[in-house]
Amino acid sequence: RPIRAVSVGRGRGRLALVGLGPGDRVWRTAEVDRLLQEATHLVGYRGYLDLVEERPGQARHAYELGEEVERCRDALELAAAGHRVALVCSGDPGIFAMAAPVVELIERGEHPAFGRLELLVSPGVSALQAAAARVGAPLGHDFCAISLSDLLTPWTVIERRLQAAAEGDFVTVLFNPASGRRRQGLIRALEILARSRPPATPVILARKLGRAGEAVSLHTLGSFDPDAVDMLSLVIVGARSTRIVERPARPPLVVTPRGYPSGGGG
Amino acid sequence: RPIRAVSVGRGRGRLALVGLGPGDRVWRTAEVDRLLQEATHLVGYRGYLDLVEERPGQARHAYELGEEVERCRDALELAAAGHRVALVCSGDPGIFAMAAPVVELIERGEHPAFGRLELLVSPGVSALQAAAARVGAPLGHDFCAISLSDLLTPWTVIERRLQAAAEGDFVTVLFNPASGRRRQGLIRALEILARSRPPATPVILARKLGRAGEAVSLHTLGSFDPDAVDMLSLVIVGARSTRIVERPARPPLVVTPRGYPSGGGG
Repeated sequence: RPIRAVSVGRGRGRLALVGLGPGDRVWRTAEVDRLLQEATHLVGYRGYLDLVEERPGQARHAYELGEEVERCRDALELAAAGHRVALVCSGDPGIFAMAAPVVELIERGEHPAFGRLELLVSPGVSALQAAAARVGAPLGHDFCAISLSDLLTPWTVIERRLQAAAEGDFVTVLFNPASGRRRQGLIRALEILARSRPPATPVILARKLGRAGEAVSLHTLGSFDPDAVDMLSLVIVGARSTRIVERPARPPLVVTPRGYPSGGGG
Repeated sequence: RPIRAVSVGRGRGRLALVGLGPGDRVWRTAEVDRLLQEATHLVGYRGYLDLVEERPGQARHAYELGEEVERCRDALELAAAGHRVALVCSGDPGIFAMAAPVVELIERGEHPAFGRLELLVSPGVSALQAAAARVGAPLGHDFCAISLSDLLTPWTVIERRLQAAAEGDFVTVLFNPASGRRRQGLIRALEILARSRPPATPVILARKLGRAGEAVSLHTLGSFDPDAVDMLSLVIVGARSTRIVERPARPPLVVTPRGYPSGGGG
């Protein structure tokens, strides 16, 4: 342990943003494993740190939900003090996770050392990819990802994005689709998409991906029940060309074909 | 080797679609490593198979560019014959790769065994994530991914998606932005996005991610040169809120902030 501390030294700090993927250890990349091993300090939401093996001599700084800026600042400060820090994210750090608030803190320049740090973003499998993989190929063609959280984004902006997703006929991945207090946005999102997509359009609901209790279920836009959605859910709404493929003795698959065959529809 | 062959047997075949990630071995997941090890047959584009370590007793079926349907059919047929097959993709199999054509072939029902197979899609880091990671957090908020290849999709559909991406102010990831014979689509795409985004909007050009000769460069919508783009490139055009963050003695970063702070702009 002392050896590690000496080898680091002040001014040689590094902040690595690592994406664990969605829960399951098998979806973690080799680079993320290495960065977690090399870190002297792990910072992150308590639930994500619980997914990382304990290592002797490695300090842990666990944060609660909602303390996003606090954990980013802590990670930057530890790295500025010369430590090798891993800021632990679920999924991919760059997709609705901690990469953006970290870069915003660097931009704000609270501490001049933040801008001189070695910053490394190590990608991970996003929940959108894991959910898609479980049912085949719903993201087989153009898609968009929209967060329905109105915590930092006015609903008018979110609604404009949903309208654009509808007009562009994108496969639409809804992040943060609902929470305890918030479900009206999801209902509105489904309404907007249903105006230009048939009721038979596949909808995928994924919960607790890669974790105990994982549930990925297949619905249609016409029959989807928004009450089945909670904070731990991801929702994917198919495009007009997205289809369900039934199989004998196997669960059905979903595909968004790569192209539009001449003659259309098929 | 014989032991492996016996343990497989007819009717117990499995097709695993594995995503290597964009080139670099360190971005591969543990699940993909395991599936590659377990496979008796590897199928894929020659250039991707070259990235996988040789294993004794493992057959390789290398295909050239353009033979997408052929390699998917071959993989399905080998699995239907009882083999453990890995169809090797770059990036993520579900994002502009082989998951969609495989599910389409299952749907078509050329061979009844295709529908009874064990099919496994194993996600990988997509080029869009790797490109974003190299520059910080350009995908920090809502984004869309559009393929500019008009091989299977009429240009009118692509252009409608680009218009929608502009209207929705999505960070816009352009897959297959250009090839030897095709560059006009990219020029048109940049024109459409430039109508509603300022000339200072960051544009990221990523080539050969995770491979020898990797080049990730930062441009603006006003100064971007479409001639710098080729078949091996990925282009990310920022949203109106996307900013370049300069750092002393470090390369600049890119961030799309998570929210719209009251007062706007900042």
